[in-house]
Amino acid sequence: MVTVLLLLSLATASSSSVAGMASAGGCLYLVGLGLGDEKDITVKGLETVRRCKGIFLEGYTSILGVDVKRLEEFYERPVTLMDREAVESECDGMLELATKEEVAFLVVGDVYGATTHTDMAVRAKELGIKVRVIHNASIMNACSACGLQLYNFGQTVSICFFTETWKPDSFIDKVVVNKKAGMHTLALLDIKVKEQSEENMARGRKIYEPPRSVLKPRASHKIIDTLKPRHHLQSLQFPGRESVNLSLPLWT
Amino acid sequence: MVTVLLLLSLATASSSSVAGMASAGGCLYLVGLGLGDEKDITVKGLETVRRCKGIFLEGYTSILGVDVKRLEEFYERPVTLMDREAVESECDGMLELATKEEVAFLVVGDVYGATTHTDMAVRAKELGIKVRVIHNASIMNACSACGLQLYNFGQTVSICFFTETWKPDSFIDKVVVNKKAGMHTLALLDIKVKEQSEENMARGRKIYEPPRSVLKPRASHKIIDTLKPRHHLQSLQFPGRESVNLSLPLWT
Repeated sequence: MVTVLLLLSLATASSSSVAGMASAGGCLYLVGLGLGDEKDITVKGLETVRRCKGIFLEGYTSILGVDVKRLEEFYERPVTLMDREAVESECDGMLELATKEEVAFLVVGDVYGATTHTDMAVRAKELGIKVRVIHNASIMNACSACGLQLYNFGQTVSICFFTETWKPDSFIDKVVVNKKAGMHTLALLDIKVKEQSEENMARGRKIYEPPRSVLKPRASHKIIDTLKPRHHLQSLQFPGRESVNLSLPLWT
Repeated sequence: MVTVLLLLSLATASSSSVAGMASAGGCLYLVGLGLGDEKDITVKGLETVRRCKGIFLEGYTSILGVDVKRLEEFYERPVTLMDREAVESECDGMLELATKEEVAFLVVGDVYGATTHTDMAVRAKELGIKVRVIHNASIMNACSACGLQLYNFGQTVSICFFTETWKPDSFIDKVVVNKKAGMHTLALLDIKVKEQSEENMARGRKIYEPPRSVLKPRASHKIIDTLKPRHHLQSLQFPGRESVNLSLPLWT
């Protein structure tokens, strides 16, 4: 019963739409890859990627179910993997290329899940580069596969890794706001890809930890542990059966 | 920073996951088509559709930017358009076929945006039919193209057509809940496809009105009009510039 839509926002929306500007020759395509393997790209996305001069894969906010090599074989083109460092500090080269040539920046899931990618679109537009978006499935909509009605989700939270000295638990306040208003909460679990240990970071050593994620059972326990000392919240009741754990292969 | 995830739900989630059950030979594929044209289907979706014995397009909760003919040409297969009547009353034939053959049910956007499709998956599973989902972009995630952060959206509302005798304004309460909690609201606007007039419905005449949608400017005005008599809500302030109108071609 729904197609056209309207957004009521709290803040004035950015007037810089990420699409529609003309530039001389080049173009930056932000291409969502979906959530599974190399074949979850759209036909439009694949055709676009195959004609691009440069293909860059954002590889630190999320991880696809297949490695870069398999993407390269499927696209029949080389793909440059960009870790956090590359995206944050070395994307000037990519944007410069996009002033003259067609360039694809590939994002696991959909394009604007992470603010990093919105920033990149804004930067490109400020440089006069044409920006085009090819959307795809995101966990923000595919989570409906668990059977909960997508309309009834409230704000999304992230659950970070806890360390000995840093236990950020502010996410629980958002869960409580949602629950009080009768909404579900989608909680995204932190991953660490090419992260330095605190010691290596302090010493400026580029030694990286192996990739890891907040394991699902640990996340459930963490929420309960976080709630325990805050007794006034306990009346809301979060029995274990009220949480659903999803992981990447949810669409298979 | 996010991949694996966890859902905290208000209700106990349905234990019947829509994927993973084995059946004898057949399969029902629920395939998201994305939001634009025939090329917004995923490569996996296209490969699946092309080998299916039956292809059905759900055509009343949303409308694609291209007509069925163009889909048929692209898939190189016939496509049966299912209007509301067919989905609600005539899908038994489709499900029966899916007990023996591979069958695709195509949905504009992503698969589980509308409860109708969840119901269909549940029905299929109850009949012992294997169900597979191929996700795609939905307006529920692609709306991030407007520049607003997807994490900060609250519950979604629908704005229906107002008639002389029926002006459902309960959506505004949800908008207020979201706004008070600092969240954006995605408001989906009603469309009418193959709908009967009240008179024709009462007389049992299968005469259908031409397709139409709640036009965007009218929706903005409707919200303001709805707020007017509820003076205690006016302190929340919804100036016109706090709404963003999106329409189907947002991804181009």
